Amino acid sequence: MTNRPNPARRNAKSRSAILAATRALITEAGYQKVSIEAIAAKAGVGKQTIYRWWPSKGAVVFDAILALSEGDPEQENHGAEKDSGTMALPDTGDLEADLKTVLRATVAEFTDPAFEAPVRALNIEIAGDPELAAGYRERMAAPMAAVKKDRLRSGQRAGQLDSGADLDLVIDLLWSPIAQRWLLRTGALDDAFADGLVDAVLRAFAPS
Amino acid sequence: MTNRPNPARRNAKSRSAILAATRALITEAGYQKVSIEAIAAKAGVGKQTIYRWWPSKGAVVFDAILALSEGDPEQENHGAEKDSGTMALPDTGDLEADLKTVLRATVAEFTDPAFEAPVRALNIEIAGDPELAAGYRERMAAPMAAVKKDRLRSGQRAGQLDSGADLDLVIDLLWSPIAQRWLLRTGALDDAFADGLVDAVLRAFAPS
Repeated sequence: MTNRPNPARRNAKSRSAILAATRALITEAGYQKVSIEAIAAKAGVGKQTIYRWWPSKGAVVFDAILALSEGDPEQENHGAEKDSGTMALPDTGDLEADLKTVLRATVAEFTDPAFEAPVRALNIEIAGDPELAAGYRERMAAPMAAVKKDRLRSGQRAGQLDSGADLDLVIDLLWSPIAQRWLLRTGALDDAFADGLVDAVLRAFAPS
Repeated sequence: MTNRPNPARRNAKSRSAILAATRALITEAGYQKVSIEAIAAKAGVGKQTIYRWWPSKGAVVFDAILALSEGDPEQENHGAEKDSGTMALPDTGDLEADLKTVLRATVAEFTDPAFEAPVRALNIEIAGDPELAAGYRERMAAPMAAVKKDRLRSGQRAGQLDSGADLDLVIDLLWSPIAQRWLLRTGALDDAFADGLVDAVLRAFAPS
């Protein structure tokens, strides 16, 4: 590795600056007020640099969030570690305790403005754009589901979850109620809610 | 009641035309392409008429969807009857069968473009606007939850659901996974998924 500037390294730095500026603007001003112009100004690049790499604001936002969970070393990380494809959920041998830890952390993230503002923006973009939704499925939802299934399978081996359980259904039952309450602001998000979800789902899929 | 035109009646007709035009445009062109200008042109009113009654596109969309579920006789109704505050869920005496009927119907609605396009638009608006979210909670989510709880309580009396069950949690576990899969397009929406949700939740809250 050399310290001389070169085009590839300059591109990587611009890309990183653009994604960091996108996240900062979403958190500071709210997604609706973010524009390609504002991102370019804050990142210190020209608008054309952004349009060369991304077709829309939604696409920039998507990559800005994805960079967090992929652990790009040039990006800060707002507690999304557990959702990274390279990470695992905690496994202390106690499925109930570990799921409560994870769901309480999920609830905490959704009540943290620095985390929730960009994720909300991403959810809105995905909901309105089938192509972005396909990218989300492939690059975020599927790796996250694989990490969750690893932990659930370990629970099945430990006799703490029915060995015949449909793990996609288990994942949806655990996480969707939190995501819906958060996204549509329809109810309280707290530890009691997280614990109640885990208790109900483990009763539904108790080993027979 | 008189047949002579009067301002109140003219206002009601304009309002109704605006809401019908909003729903039609969302279904035909997609929410992103709908503008106040387009709504005004299709409804045959001036833009100022719309801005006099609604502060934003999101607010018009909200009332357009709400008019469906409130059963305004001048509006068509795309199968939203079961969500109306004046309606009830089916009660044949068999909670499992009735919940499967309702969840299968919910899944069918979400795969019907005429129904799902305006509801998707509404979800996107609610996700991005806390004030609209409060209106949604009060005018749509709460009445719908009351209707669902009535049916669940009847199931508790029939000994088909634990009498101590947290009914808000039961409702979230049944409906949120469908809403999330639909909104973010993360998985298949079919009868098997609907049935699997009902089976899991009734196991979790079986009478002790």
